[in-house]
Amino acid sequence: MARLVQKFGGTSVGDVDRIKNVARRVKREVEAGNQVAVVVSAMSGVTNQLVDYVREISRLHDAREYDTVVASGEQVTSGLLALALQAIDVPARSFLGWQIPLRTDGVHGRARIEEIGTEAIERRLNDGQVAVIAGFQGVTADNRITTLGRGGSDTSAVALAAALNADRCDIYTDVEGVYTCDPRIVTRARKLDRITYEEMLEMASQGAKVLQTRSVAMAMRHRVRVQVLSSFEDKPGTLVVDEDEIVEQQVVSGIAYSRDEAKITLTGLADRPGIAASIFGPLAASDINVDMIVQNVSGGGGTTDLTFTVAKSDLDRTVARLEEIRKDVGFSGIVPDPDVVKVSVIGVGMRSHAGIASKMFEALASRGINIQVISTSEIKVSVLIAEEYAELALRTLHTAYGLDQV
Amino acid sequence: MARLVQKFGGTSVGDVDRIKNVARRVKREVEAGNQVAVVVSAMSGVTNQLVDYVREISRLHDAREYDTVVASGEQVTSGLLALALQAIDVPARSFLGWQIPLRTDGVHGRARIEEIGTEAIERRLNDGQVAVIAGFQGVTADNRITTLGRGGSDTSAVALAAALNADRCDIYTDVEGVYTCDPRIVTRARKLDRITYEEMLEMASQGAKVLQTRSVAMAMRHRVRVQVLSSFEDKPGTLVVDEDEIVEQQVVSGIAYSRDEAKITLTGLADRPGIAASIFGPLAASDINVDMIVQNVSGGGGTTDLTFTVAKSDLDRTVARLEEIRKDVGFSGIVPDPDVVKVSVIGVGMRSHAGIASKMFEALASRGINIQVISTSEIKVSVLIAEEYAELALRTLHTAYGLDQV
Repeated sequence: MARLVQKFGGTSVGDVDRIKNVARRVKREVEAGNQVAVVVSAMSGVTNQLVDYVREISRLHDAREYDTVVASGEQVTSGLLALALQAIDVPARSFLGWQIPLRTDGVHGRARIEEIGTEAIERRLNDGQVAVIAGFQGVTADNRITTLGRGGSDTSAVALAAALNADRCDIYTDVEGVYTCDPRIVTRARKLDRITYEEMLEMASQGAKVLQTRSVAMAMRHRVRVQVLSSFEDKPGTLVVDEDEIVEQQVVSGIAYSRDEAKITLTGLADRPGIAASIFGPLAASDINVDMIVQNVSGGGGTTDLTFTVAKSDLDRTVARLEEIRKDVGFSGIVPDPDVVKVSVIGVGMRSHAGIASKMFEALASRGINIQVISTSEIKVSVLIAEEYAELALRTLHTAYGLDQV
Repeated sequence: MARLVQKFGGTSVGDVDRIKNVARRVKREVEAGNQVAVVVSAMSGVTNQLVDYVREISRLHDAREYDTVVASGEQVTSGLLALALQAIDVPARSFLGWQIPLRTDGVHGRARIEEIGTEAIERRLNDGQVAVIAGFQGVTADNRITTLGRGGSDTSAVALAAALNADRCDIYTDVEGVYTCDPRIVTRARKLDRITYEEMLEMASQGAKVLQTRSVAMAMRHRVRVQVLSSFEDKPGTLVVDEDEIVEQQVVSGIAYSRDEAKITLTGLADRPGIAASIFGPLAASDINVDMIVQNVSGGGGTTDLTFTVAKSDLDRTVARLEEIRKDVGFSGIVPDPDVVKVSVIGVGMRSHAGIASKMFEALASRGINIQVISTSEIKVSVLIAEEYAELALRTLHTAYGLDQV
């Protein structure tokens, strides 16, 4: 007997028939003798509708009321799935965040989980019942509803799996697992059977949308075995596990990309100590996250160029902030460029293998693709290139690292 | 300074613009120096959609999960109205049933209110804030969400007005108040400025849909001054008050009708003591409510006829139950007739005025309308007639009792 947490996303519970389908899938695990807790998202489209209502009423809304409104979507699905389970003779009950209770801090709209009361859920599981948990939501110490941020149901599921000491956390979604690259672009992409937490974390934070970064970080911290699999097909997905559970590690496991960043170059910058801090300090204070940074070698006349990337959605705000500090800091030009894509090659094997980065640079050069910015970590190499080369670069790299399906 | 409870129904909060409109209306009361608690229903159509989801999944549903699902509609509206108030600089916060807490018994789907914690709301009101309360919902002692039955937001509002010792409970709806008769049928119907609790209770239970019977009974018990008024027009509505607040009482205040009843006649019934109990006992045990009853004078041969009415929605079930007991009880025929309407003339003045009933019978006879069943109470005379005469009967009686608008 195992204890499982299953999580179903918005498309998996998109209508009544799909909810019934989910119930049958849950039943199969119950009949196999497992204890099952299920975490559900809102029916697809519902959360967006609720967010639209809030925005129509007020741009600068009270995040506590926002949370009260949008958390209702998961409430509906949890009740409906409990009913669908009962209808096929699986005893079940729904749990809302405040009923568990799943305690969070008071940062409404993107609250962090502080503590999960497991007593009520454990009692149900030990009774052979299925606990159906409304994802994405929690409750503060003063009994206000909070939400964990978009995609927060993944985080709910992993946190619950950790709190319940579950043997596995199955994240059901609309893809079959984690791929070596986005299969909509690279048709030869392969589904990975296993991937390490570290790689999954890089994949998620470098643009792969299959799992929320935060939920992967939590899984890694608590060593929760996570499986990503399709709710529409009946086959095993990708297991996210400890490195030592993977016998034969690939050097490169996957290639991620992100179109969500924009590049900014500051020209004619005084080349003096503390200049970087005088720029990135004000940006950080304005809650603007900077990702890649490269400072060019100083040209003549004591000036240099500085290039960095920010979220595309922050571009206008960033340029405005830079204009404000231009005089004080002293630079001659601000050159924004939203037409870039970040491509990242990821693999824990990099730690022990040399030449991964140079293979990347050579492969891109062979296609005439210019690299604008480079950043690396222990298990990742990222480059920024012109957006028009995105697909070509991904296919080229996929082949170069021997990832193509045979 | 007065303390008010305002309740807005589903059509009044049917979309974002209407919610903003409600916010402006609430603001006006706040600016007039009043303390305001607002009770809201779900946006029109939402509750029906949620109920449909539940029914698609399971006909025999767990009422606890049903409540979890359908209560979400009021949750959304309460959050949105709080936001709309804040957007026009009125401090406000939402309260869900469990946050108040509004404690109910465990009869899910039609729970009864047991206790209302007023401390948190009072604190907000005394702070000059508006408390926006999700109507229709409560919470059991073991923290499950309950609902009060359809139209339960009226009950929430009146109960809250009683608990908060409010000076008035304003029920905003899509009509301008309580009319002498349904103005869609009787064009000369007049809006009443005042009506007594007793009359309003009879009006509601005899078919007038403007207020839920249960909320009127509660208002009467706790002497809550209730006003029914339009959320789309800006004029006073109808005040439901104690009899001694009405200086010049009409003999007849209004005429109600209900198409929701069906007639059943049992023929060839043995005319012996205990025969009625042998029929109505089993029906009551099957949760079938019987309204009007008339037993005809015994014919020859020791047999008689018995006529009574039940809710139209219970007709098939009633006939089936009667078939089961036909042999034991002993009657020859079951004659169901759904094509009837119950017309009721209501007024506290009847207590001191004779001739009200006979005027009714004469007026109907003058139009050739046959009366099938009669029942009376201290302040009401009801008759059952063929449905095809409904409109004619209402107009005739409205004129006969001098209720027509001049």
